[in-house]
Amino acid sequence: MTTRVLTGVTTTGTPHLGNYVGAIRPAIEASRKADVDAFFFLADYHALIKCDDPARIERSRLEIAATWLAAGLDPERVTFYRQSDVPEITELNWLLTCVTAKGQMNRAHAYKASTDINEAAGEDPDHGVTMGLFCYPILMAADILMFNAHKIPVGRDQIQHIEMARDVAARFNHLFGQGRELFVLPEAHIEEHVATLPGLDGRKMSKSYDNTIPLFEGGSKSLKDAIARIVTDSKLPGEAKDADNSHLVTIYEAFASRDEATAFRAALAGGLGWGEAKQQLVALIEREIAPMRARYEALMANPEQIEALLQIGAQKARAIATPFLNELRHAVGLRTFQPAAKPAASAQKSKAALPLFKQYREADGRFYFKLTSHDGQVLLQSNGFDSGRDAGQWVGRLKQEGAAALADAPVALGDAVTAAQVADALAAFAEE
Amino acid sequence: MTTRVLTGVTTTGTPHLGNYVGAIRPAIEASRKADVDAFFFLADYHALIKCDDPARIERSRLEIAATWLAAGLDPERVTFYRQSDVPEITELNWLLTCVTAKGQMNRAHAYKASTDINEAAGEDPDHGVTMGLFCYPILMAADILMFNAHKIPVGRDQIQHIEMARDVAARFNHLFGQGRELFVLPEAHIEEHVATLPGLDGRKMSKSYDNTIPLFEGGSKSLKDAIARIVTDSKLPGEAKDADNSHLVTIYEAFASRDEATAFRAALAGGLGWGEAKQQLVALIEREIAPMRARYEALMANPEQIEALLQIGAQKARAIATPFLNELRHAVGLRTFQPAAKPAASAQKSKAALPLFKQYREADGRFYFKLTSHDGQVLLQSNGFDSGRDAGQWVGRLKQEGAAALADAPVALGDAVTAAQVADALAAFAEE
Repeated sequence: MTTRVLTGVTTTGTPHLGNYVGAIRPAIEASRKADVDAFFFLADYHALIKCDDPARIERSRLEIAATWLAAGLDPERVTFYRQSDVPEITELNWLLTCVTAKGQMNRAHAYKASTDINEAAGEDPDHGVTMGLFCYPILMAADILMFNAHKIPVGRDQIQHIEMARDVAARFNHLFGQGRELFVLPEAHIEEHVATLPGLDGRKMSKSYDNTIPLFEGGSKSLKDAIARIVTDSKLPGEAKDADNSHLVTIYEAFASRDEATAFRAALAGGLGWGEAKQQLVALIEREIAPMRARYEALMANPEQIEALLQIGAQKARAIATPFLNELRHAVGLRTFQPAAKPAASAQKSKAALPLFKQYREADGRFYFKLTSHDGQVLLQSNGFDSGRDAGQWVGRLKQEGAAALADAPVALGDAVTAAQVADALAAFAEE
Repeated sequence: MTTRVLTGVTTTGTPHLGNYVGAIRPAIEASRKADVDAFFFLADYHALIKCDDPARIERSRLEIAATWLAAGLDPERVTFYRQSDVPEITELNWLLTCVTAKGQMNRAHAYKASTDINEAAGEDPDHGVTMGLFCYPILMAADILMFNAHKIPVGRDQIQHIEMARDVAARFNHLFGQGRELFVLPEAHIEEHVATLPGLDGRKMSKSYDNTIPLFEGGSKSLKDAIARIVTDSKLPGEAKDADNSHLVTIYEAFASRDEATAFRAALAGGLGWGEAKQQLVALIEREIAPMRARYEALMANPEQIEALLQIGAQKARAIATPFLNELRHAVGLRTFQPAAKPAASAQKSKAALPLFKQYREADGRFYFKLTSHDGQVLLQSNGFDSGRDAGQWVGRLKQEGAAALADAPVALGDAVTAAQVADALAAFAEE
């Protein structure tokens, strides 16, 4: 059973070395796990909340996309897309807006932080607050629920937003699900073990502290120049250094194997000079970063290649979002006008026209099932199972739980079949 | 010069006779004026704010669509669509959300009315208030600005919302227009002269007073039954009636010619009994309504016909919305990644590649102009003018004001040409 993990990056800045160690590298590693179905997106609708400089947004989208690809994100394996290439998200955002209590938004941390500052300054609490800032937890819920993501890796400050997404999902399920769980309730995944990289001055590396080390920007020279500015104590070469109190060592260890880290600490204790240590740090980081930087520069020189990858990603994302949104639209009452029912005929049809589960064994020795509509169209096709019992259990779950079981089930939709069709067919079993 | 007029109807109820006289009939009449380009839409995204009953929304959408069509709305002439068939509106809604001040929404009448009631009841001011209610002036602005409508017919209670749409449009133009007016500033058009039809009890006809006369619902029998319940004084046949104090007369006059009204008043003064008067009223209303009711019933029996008309309407609406949204996305920075510029070549191109206005006279004796791109593609084609001077003035305005003048200009886009392309071409003149 795979876990769907969703990560978004707001496209307003240029990634630095701290972003790489703290977010990009661990996220890409996690995306390679066999049981993970990873979604990465450039959160450019969110960028509009805090940035009204179009050139900066344009540049940041490109830089962040190139960075993630250069750092090893595999767009074949993960679903990598720009938020704004999936307009279904803004439509879902409106559906969720209609079922979100205003009182809950009043209590959102990011909004409260702004009103607190205004109140402390004697201003109107909403001075300078846009509706984008006020509404953004709803857009974030739409990002997550659009793909029924199970797990959202976040920092502690974002837990509240995931809880809000759970609340709105539960409320929507209750109002419109008719017993079905339209939305999976997402869970926050707190990244406890990810290192926070210190900046030049030893505080957390952050643009707001002006203490960052560039990742790819400015090439190897910029990296070298920044590392030369890392603050150390004033011990001279030959004197023993205290590795435990040196953030240069912390940065070194973020890129070193265990043996390399031990050797570096021993060398410092043995009198290695800071100048020499910084040269070793540059070499160590370059070992990991230099090949990525080459890829980054190649990508930045050919934005149309990134565009093509993102278009493929958007297609993958919309292959999920479009049918799912149709299902949600239907649930709230935004339905295509159908020919008026002919009561007698339709009653007859509902008996004769039940969809059908078929279980069978293939030449590969494995067990399968498929769901066909009353007129023989294949709606669902399972993967292979080791035993007929496993296949049978899934058929049972699908019959009993209906579309709610679909997110977990090892099945694929038939050609041109929408999730809504399958949900309707499964609902027929529940009515039996 | 045509005026673009936009009207939306929230799809939560069933139209009654008061809606017909007060809204539907005058709007359809106005849509027939030669200088009006009318947009009518079923506001079903708005319906979700106040209604979480999907069946009611589904039913109301169908009834309202059938009512407008039966009452004579010409879908060939006007753009008639469901709001939810134009998903660009929710995307624009988000763009506008990011530039709307929260303080402005705090002051919206509809929201204030809810908080006032809560406060009077000793509740939290936001008790039971959804974000849908709080945010709806932004969605309404998106409805209007998506089509750059000039004139919005509204009641006095809605003037504030049009002002909010103007504000957000002006702010967006200022932030992202780079001197261009991306959005036309819409104007409220107050309907002063439209009659408010009294209900059975003489108060304004309204579902909340339970005093409505059905329009098509329940057929002619329901109409007759309702009219039989109109409250009158207790004067007997033969006694003179005071027409000025009879709301039955007001209803009669909403359907009568001037001569018929005069005759009816004279008959009442002459002793016409109320029972007989009611029969005459039924006959008068039926003269206008009965043919519509037949069309209504035919439409309601064939929802797929309405669906087909609305799909055509959605195509017409999206033919405007899609390219315009692309232009707006570009303006805020949501841009396709383009091949990296080759600086030398592009500088050269910008001199050589200016678009071109050509003025000429056709065999019909009239004067025309067209705008072609540097490679000869026709971007704009004007209608015919009586004088070359008129044509020349439009060329001048387009060069000077750029895309802002497009909404008014008597021109058509070339085949497969988007408004964004034209806007770019016109911008080239501004840079000259």
